[in-house]
Amino acid sequence: MDRIKIKAVLERVQENSMTVPEALETFTSLPYENLDFAKLDTHRMLRTGFPEVIFCKGKSTAQISEIAKKLADLKQPVIATKASDEIYQAIAGVNGKAVYYDVARIVAIGKIESKKKNKKILVITGGTSDIPIAEEAAVTAELLGGDSVERLYDVGVAGLHRLTGEIQLMNSADAIIVVAGMDGALASVVGGLTRKPVIAVPTSIGYGSSFEGLAALLTMLNSCAPGVAVMNIDNGFGAGHFVARLN
Amino acid sequence: MDRIKIKAVLERVQENSMTVPEALETFTSLPYENLDFAKLDTHRMLRTGFPEVIFCKGKSTAQISEIAKKLADLKQPVIATKASDEIYQAIAGVNGKAVYYDVARIVAIGKIESKKKNKKILVITGGTSDIPIAEEAAVTAELLGGDSVERLYDVGVAGLHRLTGEIQLMNSADAIIVVAGMDGALASVVGGLTRKPVIAVPTSIGYGSSFEGLAALLTMLNSCAPGVAVMNIDNGFGAGHFVARLN
Amino acid sequence: MDRIKIKAVLERVQENSMTVPEALETFTSLPYENLDFAKLDTHRMLRTGFPEVIFCKGKSTAQISEIAKKLADLKQPVIATKASDEIYQAIAGVNGKAVYYDVARIVAIGKIESKKKNKKILVITGGTSDIPIAEEAAVTAELLGGDSVERLYDVGVAGLHRLTGEIQLMNSADAIIVVAGMDGALASVVGGLTRKPVIAVPTSIGYGSSFEGLAALLTMLNSCAPGVAVMNIDNGFGAGHFVARLN
Amino acid sequence: MDRIKIKAVLERVQENSMTVPEALETFTSLPYENLDFAKLDTHRMLRTGFPEVIFCKGKSTAQISEIAKKLADLKQPVIATKASDEIYQAIAGVNGKAVYYDVARIVAIGKIESKKKNKKILVITGGTSDIPIAEEAAVTAELLGGDSVERLYDVGVAGLHRLTGEIQLMNSADAIIVVAGMDGALASVVGGLTRKPVIAVPTSIGYGSSFEGLAALLTMLNSCAPGVAVMNIDNGFGAGHFVARLN
Amino acid sequence: MDRIKIKAVLERVQENSMTVPEALETFTSLPYENLDFAKLDTHRMLRTGFPEVIFCKGKSTAQISEIAKKLADLKQPVIATKASDEIYQAIAGVNGKAVYYDVARIVAIGKIESKKKNKKILVITGGTSDIPIAEEAAVTAELLGGDSVERLYDVGVAGLHRLTGEIQLMNSADAIIVVAGMDGALASVVGGLTRKPVIAVPTSIGYGSSFEGLAALLTMLNSCAPGVAVMNIDNGFGAGHFVARLN
Amino acid sequence: MDRIKIKAVLERVQENSMTVPEALETFTSLPYENLDFAKLDTHRMLRTGFPEVIFCKGKSTAQISEIAKKLADLKQPVIATKASDEIYQAIAGVNGKAVYYDVARIVAIGKIESKKKNKKILVITGGTSDIPIAEEAAVTAELLGGDSVERLYDVGVAGLHRLTGEIQLMNSADAIIVVAGMDGALASVVGGLTRKPVIAVPTSIGYGSSFEGLAALLTMLNSCAPGVAVMNIDNGFGAGHFVARLN
Amino acid sequence: MDRIKIKAVLERVQENSMTVPEALETFTSLPYENLDFAKLDTHRMLRTGFPEVIFCKGKSTAQISEIAKKLADLKQPVIATKASDEIYQAIAGVNGKAVYYDVARIVAIGKIESKKKNKKILVITGGTSDIPIAEEAAVTAELLGGDSVERLYDVGVAGLHRLTGEIQLMNSADAIIVVAGMDGALASVVGGLTRKPVIAVPTSIGYGSSFEGLAALLTMLNSCAPGVAVMNIDNGFGAGHFVARLN
Amino acid sequence: MDRIKIKAVLERVQENSMTVPEALETFTSLPYENLDFAKLDTHRMLRTGFPEVIFCKGKSTAQISEIAKKLADLKQPVIATKASDEIYQAIAGVNGKAVYYDVARIVAIGKIESKKKNKKILVITGGTSDIPIAEEAAVTAELLGGDSVERLYDVGVAGLHRLTGEIQLMNSADAIIVVAGMDGALASVVGGLTRKPVIAVPTSIGYGSSFEGLAALLTMLNSCAPGVAVMNIDNGFGAGHFVARLN
Repeated sequence: MDRIKIKAVLERVQENSMTVPEALETFTSLPYENLDFAKLDTHRMLRTGFPEVIFCKGKSTAQISEIAKKLADLKQPVIATKASDEIYQAIAGVNGKAVYYDVARIVAIGKIESKKKNKKILVITGGTSDIPIAEEAAVTAELLGGDSVERLYDVGVAGLHRLTGEIQLMNSADAIIVVAGMDGALASVVGGLTRKPVIAVPTSIGYGSSFEGLAALLTMLNSCAPGVAVMNIDNGFGAGHFVARLN
Repeated sequence: MDRIKIKAVLERVQENSMTVPEALETFTSLPYENLDFAKLDTHRMLRTGFPEVIFCKGKSTAQISEIAKKLADLKQPVIATKASDEIYQAIAGVNGKAVYYDVARIVAIGKIESKKKNKKILVITGGTSDIPIAEEAAVTAELLGGDSVERLYDVGVAGLHRLTGEIQLMNSADAIIVVAGMDGALASVVGGLTRKPVIAVPTSIGYGSSFEGLAALLTMLNSCAPGVAVMNIDNGFGAGHFVARLN
Repeated sequence: MDRIKIKAVLERVQENSMTVPEALETFTSLPYENLDFAKLDTHRMLRTGFPEVIFCKGKSTAQISEIAKKLADLKQPVIATKASDEIYQAIAGVNGKAVYYDVARIVAIGKIESKKKNKKILVITGGTSDIPIAEEAAVTAELLGGDSVERLYDVGVAGLHRLTGEIQLMNSADAIIVVAGMDGALASVVGGLTRKPVIAVPTSIGYGSSFEGLAALLTMLNSCAPGVAVMNIDNGFGAGHFVARLN
Repeated sequence: MDRIKIKAVLERVQENSMTVPEALETFTSLPYENLDFAKLDTHRMLRTGFPEVIFCKGKSTAQISEIAKKLADLKQPVIATKASDEIYQAIAGVNGKAVYYDVARIVAIGKIESKKKNKKILVITGGTSDIPIAEEAAVTAELLGGDSVERLYDVGVAGLHRLTGEIQLMNSADAIIVVAGMDGALASVVGGLTRKPVIAVPTSIGYGSSFEGLAALLTMLNSCAPGVAVMNIDNGFGAGHFVARLN
Repeated sequence: MDRIKIKAVLERVQENSMTVPEALETFTSLPYENLDFAKLDTHRMLRTGFPEVIFCKGKSTAQISEIAKKLADLKQPVIATKASDEIYQAIAGVNGKAVYYDVARIVAIGKIESKKKNKKILVITGGTSDIPIAEEAAVTAELLGGDSVERLYDVGVAGLHRLTGEIQLMNSADAIIVVAGMDGALASVVGGLTRKPVIAVPTSIGYGSSFEGLAALLTMLNSCAPGVAVMNIDNGFGAGHFVARLN
Repeated sequence: MDRIKIKAVLERVQENSMTVPEALETFTSLPYENLDFAKLDTHRMLRTGFPEVIFCKGKSTAQISEIAKKLADLKQPVIATKASDEIYQAIAGVNGKAVYYDVARIVAIGKIESKKKNKKILVITGGTSDIPIAEEAAVTAELLGGDSVERLYDVGVAGLHRLTGEIQLMNSADAIIVVAGMDGALASVVGGLTRKPVIAVPTSIGYGSSFEGLAALLTMLNSCAPGVAVMNIDNGFGAGHFVARLN
Repeated sequence: MDRIKIKAVLERVQENSMTVPEALETFTSLPYENLDFAKLDTHRMLRTGFPEVIFCKGKSTAQISEIAKKLADLKQPVIATKASDEIYQAIAGVNGKAVYYDVARIVAIGKIESKKKNKKILVITGGTSDIPIAEEAAVTAELLGGDSVERLYDVGVAGLHRLTGEIQLMNSADAIIVVAGMDGALASVVGGLTRKPVIAVPTSIGYGSSFEGLAALLTMLNSCAPGVAVMNIDNGFGAGHFVARLN
Repeated sequence: MDRIKIKAVLERVQENSMTVPEALETFTSLPYENLDFAKLDTHRMLRTGFPEVIFCKGKSTAQISEIAKKLADLKQPVIATKASDEIYQAIAGVNGKAVYYDVARIVAIGKIESKKKNKKILVITGGTSDIPIAEEAAVTAELLGGDSVERLYDVGVAGLHRLTGEIQLMNSADAIIVVAGMDGALASVVGGLTRKPVIAVPTSIGYGSSFEGLAALLTMLNSCAPGVAVMNIDNGFGAGHFVARLN
């Protein structure tokens, strides 16, 4: 794309429909919006096929709703993660189409409409407490373009038969997202039962020496079954985005 | 597959061509070879589509060559990772077809022949010292079934133009493996430049507070660009196996 | 047990009282209840002899009381750990037999009635602050089937004579649970004074470089007296469950 | 026993067959041998039922063989762990009955003869590389008094069927020792499949972020299946000693 | 003292003024008070010369005031550390002589009257924020028996001349307590300027990679000037107690 | 300056306008103010050219405003960092000239007037959430003497073109402060794009394995591009002070 | 510079002395040499004013000497760090002008000749063992363009007067590099004594809880004296490069 | 002393037997020897009463023997710690009075003769492997001035009676050094048994999660018995030096 853009400019220079200084200017004026406190990477949609996403932690509600409004005005899909109900209210105040996925804690306006719809994603959790992160992954994948997402929740290794009965379901997916806290052993087990790529998301569920998810993170990184790649602790969004890129 | 096997047994019981005790026996005699010190998971090839791989660290040369021989006798492809030249010699002693990929430190006998050959993998490294791990990933992907692998080495973020000139190459791949040590920042940069899924492998290259790869690992887990999933430190094999599962 | 179940099915197939598809179905319909957000492992009682336990952290009060109700309806004992008074009120609202052990922070409905009652467990704490975790262990052991539990609290190594006077008591137990924070040295001392197996539970009591229980955990793992096995920080439930399995 | 000894002394004082200063002296001369560099706890055999064990790391070969000789002269069983072949040669030089368990790296002279022989221990490993630590556990349990030990090696979770076929074997044991490195997930899986107490031993097998066994250690401490207690990394001896105490 | 006690008992047995069973009983009935939830080590005053101290963290206000009352009733000095104003009020409610040192966060009833009063302690802080911990050390030393304590606060290494002007004061002390957070460098500097033993107390003051006092702790443990021993983070009480033992 | 001071004293001694005891006294009476709880290093302004700065964390509002008042009375510039609005109100109450930079969380009275004004500092952030720390750096540099500070915010590596378009701006600065959380990769990228010294400030923005800024800190310390020096996590003040010293 | 290059190309397109495809080609053919295993960033000299440096760890001697030869052929200065004598011999074999700084462990061919020579750098070490890292910093600064470097070695805080006598020397420098291991307190002390920017380099000298330099690293990051920026452990090269950028 | 020195100079200036420039010079020429690579702090003997000690790690044998020779020539006692036999040979080559304490790994020439000889130090170890560090402490204390040192080795808490029989010995000492690895629990136990100050030295003896002494270090820092101060891991010298300062 960069090449196409440059080529177009070069041709206009060649045919003298654009001066050299104008051309020069073009190269530095890549499309991003200046919001005083934030430079929106509106160019990202073109470059990577995915819009910029608002990570709500550490930003004020006012900042978030202003960014959301700007993106929506530019006809870009809006996705805000780790969003509280208060943040949803603020965004809904500036754009009536805002939707709140409360378990996933995501606010969205619009979504990416994908032409091909063939990838199937399976999201598995070890326990009930892991569901919010799993939903963050599932909703992200759905918003970012047409993945068909199936859920299989609360099937941790303490009751292995809940899992071994679902091998066919696993092998029918194109990729599997495994969300688990505590010992994080679920990722290894799924990786050993199936031939599909596993994206593992450790959660901060647990106590004591789980060290806010560190134990699960290390377990998953050291999976004795190959085929497991790992996201940051509680980073459901990251897993959803990763599988969206498989399309 | 398990269902198919069970179904066949059930049918033979139904038609009385198999007794109940015989049937019972069948369910526990799943195909794995007992080697006294190792139970070969020869069943894995059927279950996951990939053979068991020999991780050489912590095993004696004698053990490794015996496992290799057994697998080869069973007509399964053999892949031994983190293998020294001495190990190669031992395996070559029991099977003349053994090949040594010395940079990747992999010994292989045979490979998986895939019918479809459409996935393209790009392997990128930050520096020269990361190449052995990158080759481990690349050779693994090639052995595990037909991925077409392209290499782009020594293009770390200290000289960004080496990377930005290759955006088209990146977007032409189905998945990108990024191998980097020290600050591990390359994964974030590639993740931000392309729309393809990035599998990041931190290496133990660096010194001082790189803490044998921990710094790069944390950087990659915290990538500000989404679409990056992470493997264990120096786990090139894991990345190669993960992308093979995309087929 | 799995074998017994399979055998029964096989025999029914053999005598044609069950079709092959029906038999096939049987293998995947292992008994667990689907609660939408949680798959209850009601099968666990049969498999391991112990019911599934509700770990309250990270679950909503509504979720907890619904799980509790379901388990109780299935005539299974209910144990909810790390439970606040508010959670107790909710469970009591759906089942009048709920009991609250407030120091242990456990809500229970019913308990496992064991036929043999011969194991004797001794629970020891280093200080007063360790008592809630010790009670969690003691109550768990009592609910899971008939262990006779004795308490010996606040006998830390700073006043060694409180401990050396109780060697006979220690040797009269079948297993000893040691609960201690700060330096966690109590486990080593008890391990050296007695011939009984010691299950050590580090607590998060302490400050500064106790790092929320890490110091006690490491001390216990490195006990210079052998015969000491270790549970997670503050995991009194785990210790109680472990000793119940000794029966 | 302390009480018996004190009682005997008191009675001799009462009957004037011992003076007060003599009696006083008795209380401080508890039976331990002074070896200049080491005070042998020969009293331990009486106190805990188990002899003092020689942990070879950090001691010179000369020191080890001298301690071994002294213990053997006192008719106590000798167990030296983490012993090289060179150490074995030195001990054999001072006592012809020394036996070397080379995989377990244990040198032993004699063993504890137990009257009751009813406990059965099952030792399971995840991989081939974990066997030396598993053998350390198994041999220790056998030497410390009559446990009947069964081995089930190389049945890691990457090939789950190797494990699920052995549930009956697991439930036939009185306690199960699980030895695993890398992700250490095997302990959780065994804990979930069986009703028996599980003693988990993490090993330092693995690489990268396994951090010399830390990953497996944390996994096991955070086991989502209850009933798992944990030993120090590579501490096979500790596990063997723990189960011996169950007798 | 133990010897004296035993000798007395033996003599009474010898002169038949005490029976053997009575004597036997004596040895196990060492003086500690049973408070149901806490066993008071009232014997400690005799054994170590210092009373048991109440560490308030993790105990309820009711428990604390009951322990305080009991100790005071036994005519032992009471010292409660990390005590809030609310705790002071509760203790004052059961004993009118309670005194609150609010900066030090210590509640005391009575103090140890020492005959010899010759030790002089100097307490130094790096900054203003370290003063509460320094006062905890100073007040503890004063209460535990007659140390004469001098304060030199806010003389951190960022303004070295504040410190180098006080070398004479330092050398006039018998021991120096250095309390510092952030980089903790003050301990090394004081250790290098003086010939007196330095007891260093790291505080949790700082931010970012001070990691709640870990940075200062490590600095002090690695002091390039010898003569520095280290207490736990924020453990002013420990330092005060240590210097009291020098008497 | 010390030499000058000493020389002056020596000359006065030589000409007998000062006695030896008086001279002796001079050397120990270096100018610092004693505030009971704080020794103000008013000498620092002379010694280092910069005033003492009030780090508000861990100090009471009363202490802070008293220190501020004292410094202002001595005609020294006042800078209080990590200051809340409440602290600002308190300082404003004792000195009407107090100014509050609310984003930077700095309260200031006066500033250092520098004669030469030639240094130009560029402050860059990766995201919006990093701005408060960046402003702390920028305002500090401005208050400490005449640096001309330019801001370039929200230009993280996920959208690299926002950064590569600003190479000229970077090279026009004398030093660049890079403030970033999450992966902290921005410092490496800026270090590779420019010839100017980079002072990197990791922030605690991020989640999961960012471990409150540790990930960004390690990334920056391991920058594969040379020319990057690192400050403590969230230490914007430190970076601002460092660049002020370049004048 | 990029702008100038682009402008030149555009003008040639405009005047038709270059076709559009040729122009397009130009943008991707930025000057770097392809060495099969390494892409030399020969463009870096133009972009940042500094040549690419060879970090020898993890590269074979053959690779290093080939890279060195290539750089030297391109008339670029060669700097190889962490170089053994063997590596020096190899480089000297391909280029006779190679010089070996053995204490600094640097091999160099040529150096950057700077027009202006006004910056003065002072390198200070805490102990004798820190000298190799200090020399790496000093030699790097000298090779990268004309800094005048002065050394002040072995002046750690254990003997503070060695340091306080050198304040004038410190203030005469433009920047100070402080190299120290163990407690790393030297950086704070120098930062408090002078008005110059301090670049601190922790070394891995020390033992026990110095954790290979971690203690010194944390001390320096938490310096209570402002004006201290920190490099990676043992990264003398980084400090030398940083100060070279001040020119 | 500084004051005395300054006073003498001032008086000579006053009586005109010294010029101002000469006087000025005096203040910076404090007595330390310049050895090119090391500045000997010969002034330390006067300032702190203890000579500079040579820490051999990280220094070449040639450097060590040259420093030793210089110190000996200046009639200062020489103490070199962590010294190998080879280093001893080298020092003995330059000074015939060198003595090698091989267990302690200390080379010494001469010692400090103290007038008063009243302090008694007791050094206790947990095991045989801790003896080298204990001897380093004991020999250091003996060389630094007349402490009378008693040893009590191999009395770890696994055999508590070895320790409880020695309470009188403990209380007869002025200070107790406790040296222990593994769980480090010995320090807490000794602290609780005695009224004397305890200086605890963790050793790197142990394996697995002892993390080279970290477990013992944390245990000792968190001692539930007060009166325990802690040295760096394996820092026997530090403990010996600390108690020497008590004189």
